[in-house]
Amino acid sequence: MALLIQKFGGTSVGNIERIHRIAELIERTCQTGNQVVVVLSAMSGETDRLWRLAHDVTPHPDARELDVLLSSGERVTIALLAMKLRSRGINARSFTGRQVGIVTNSSHTRARIAKVTADPVRRALAEGVLPIVAGFQGVNERSEVTTLGRGGSDLTAVALAATLQADRCVIFTDVDGVSTADPNVVPTARRIPKLSYEEMLELSSLGAKVLQARSVEFAAKYSVPVEVKSSFQEGEGTLVTHEDVDMERAVVSGVTGDRNQAKITVVGVPDQPGIAANLFGAVAGASVLVDMIIQNVSHQDSLTDISFTVPRNDLARAMALVKRTANEIGARSVEVTEKIAKVSLVGVGMRSHSGVASRMFQTLAREKMNIMMISTSEIKISCVLDEENLNKAVQALHKEFGLESPRETGKIH
Amino acid sequence: MALLIQKFGGTSVGNIERIHRIAELIERTCQTGNQVVVVLSAMSGETDRLWRLAHDVTPHPDARELDVLLSSGERVTIALLAMKLRSRGINARSFTGRQVGIVTNSSHTRARIAKVTADPVRRALAEGVLPIVAGFQGVNERSEVTTLGRGGSDLTAVALAATLQADRCVIFTDVDGVSTADPNVVPTARRIPKLSYEEMLELSSLGAKVLQARSVEFAAKYSVPVEVKSSFQEGEGTLVTHEDVDMERAVVSGVTGDRNQAKITVVGVPDQPGIAANLFGAVAGASVLVDMIIQNVSHQDSLTDISFTVPRNDLARAMALVKRTANEIGARSVEVTEKIAKVSLVGVGMRSHSGVASRMFQTLAREKMNIMMISTSEIKISCVLDEENLNKAVQALHKEFGLESPRETGKIH
Repeated sequence: MALLIQKFGGTSVGNIERIHRIAELIERTCQTGNQVVVVLSAMSGETDRLWRLAHDVTPHPDARELDVLLSSGERVTIALLAMKLRSRGINARSFTGRQVGIVTNSSHTRARIAKVTADPVRRALAEGVLPIVAGFQGVNERSEVTTLGRGGSDLTAVALAATLQADRCVIFTDVDGVSTADPNVVPTARRIPKLSYEEMLELSSLGAKVLQARSVEFAAKYSVPVEVKSSFQEGEGTLVTHEDVDMERAVVSGVTGDRNQAKITVVGVPDQPGIAANLFGAVAGASVLVDMIIQNVSHQDSLTDISFTVPRNDLARAMALVKRTANEIGARSVEVTEKIAKVSLVGVGMRSHSGVASRMFQTLAREKMNIMMISTSEIKISCVLDEENLNKAVQALHKEFGLESPRETGKIH
Repeated sequence: MALLIQKFGGTSVGNIERIHRIAELIERTCQTGNQVVVVLSAMSGETDRLWRLAHDVTPHPDARELDVLLSSGERVTIALLAMKLRSRGINARSFTGRQVGIVTNSSHTRARIAKVTADPVRRALAEGVLPIVAGFQGVNERSEVTTLGRGGSDLTAVALAATLQADRCVIFTDVDGVSTADPNVVPTARRIPKLSYEEMLELSSLGAKVLQARSVEFAAKYSVPVEVKSSFQEGEGTLVTHEDVDMERAVVSGVTGDRNQAKITVVGVPDQPGIAANLFGAVAGASVLVDMIIQNVSHQDSLTDISFTVPRNDLARAMALVKRTANEIGARSVEVTEKIAKVSLVGVGMRSHSGVASRMFQTLAREKMNIMMISTSEIKISCVLDEENLNKAVQALHKEFGLESPRETGKIH
């Protein structure tokens, strides 16, 4: 008998008909002799609706109160599903974040999990009860409601799987798994059957919306096998697990495109030690994630230019800080480019295969695209391009690395 | 400095604009040097919406899960109001039923309050925080969410007022107080400035929807002065308090009409001891409130007929039980009349004035209305009539007892 965590996102519980369908799905899983713990999101659109309500009340709603508000959405879905299952003769019971014992720090609206006791869930399972758990929410040490940020229900599911030492954490979503590229951009994109945690982490960070990056980190840390699959159709999904030494290893697993990018250039910066630290210290202090950084070689006048990218939706916040700091350090001006995007290749195979980067650059050159910035990790290469080139770049790279056909196992020319 | 509980119903928090208005109202109350604790309902229509969602999922939703679902509505309003007040520089903080320490029994969807600690609210007040409390909800001893039934937010407000020994519990609603009759039926109906708990209790039980009967009982038991007033317009409301010996006492305070009535007649019941106990024991066991009972004198064959009224929305449930019991005791048949209604006069003055009943009967006779059943208490007389006569009866009685002009102080001819 396996213990499975089954997490359903907002679209999977978006209306009564869908709740009915996942009730059937859960019932089938139980009938095959598995123990199940269900984790749910709010109905799709509900969290956004509540968010808008709050911002209609006041432009800067208090974060503690925002969490009280936002956490109401999952109460609705857990109660409805528990009712549905009970009406079908299954002994289901709903649990809020507090009742499950998900204890977080006090960073409201983006709390981090500090501890998961899950004792009530263990007791419920021992009594033959099927627990239906509210995702996305917890309580701090003063028992005040907190939420885990966007995609936080994935994190709830993985954290529960880790605590309960579940055999697998299954994330049900509206796509059939993780794809080699966004199927809206690349019609020949395929589902990837198996990914390592590191690949999934890169893909999540690079804009693949299927699994929240923090959940992947958590899963890797506690070795929770995570499967991403469709709640609407039967069949295999994508299994995310530790890298398997024996497994047929693709050089490149997937291509991602990310439009949430903006470039800031600080022009005429005195080329002295500590200047960059000043600049990026200020931005990091505001929790803005700086991604790529380029510093030009010094001009003859000992002045340099520093360019870096930030998420486009953090641009206003970043600019306020950068302008002030630029002023303090005596830089000449600050320039912004919004119409950029990032295309990335991800694959553990890159570790053992050289030549991926040059093949990527050649492909983009052949398409006459100018590369503005480059960054690499062990298993990833990213290039910043004009935003208008993004889809063509993703398509060309998807083709170049043979991702439309079953995995290519190496042999870079 | 007075401590006031201010409770706002669903229409008072029905949208962002109204939340804005009650924030201003609360702010004004604080500025006059009062301490305030706010109790809120869910947005108007929200509890009904959730109730329908549940019944779309399954015809008989589990009561525990129903409470998890229904209690989500007040979380939304307390968070929104707390945000609004905080954005205006007031140190407000939301509290759920659990956080306030409202402990109930486990009768889900109609729980009774067992204990109110309110310590977190006391601490908040001591810190200069304005507590915004979710009405209608509590937790049982296992810390599972419960709800207090329809109008339960009134009860939360009164219970908090009692526990905190507040100077007054103000129930803000969409009418300007308790009226001598329903203004939709009697255009000359007036606001009643002052009522005793007993009168209010009779009026609430008889269909005046302005204050929940259980809240009135609770207020009387703990001597909480309750004021009912409009959240939409300035001015006095209705003060409900202990009977004031010196106060100008009206013979009749108000007239009510109640259409939620149905009559069941069990025909041909053997006239033996214990038969009535069997019959009403069965109905009471299903928590159906039997109101008036008439037993005819025995026929020559030692058979009798028993008629009684039940709330019309409990009729189906009552009939199932009555038919079974009627069968067991060998009654001849069971008949139902749905198109009946109850008109009632309420007033503490009846205690010391005789003749109210006969004047009521004369008035109805003059209007050529047949009285089917009568019941009386110390401060109330009710008559059951054809439903189609109800409005005319209420109008005639309102006029007969001079309720359209300021209080008549006695002198029944």
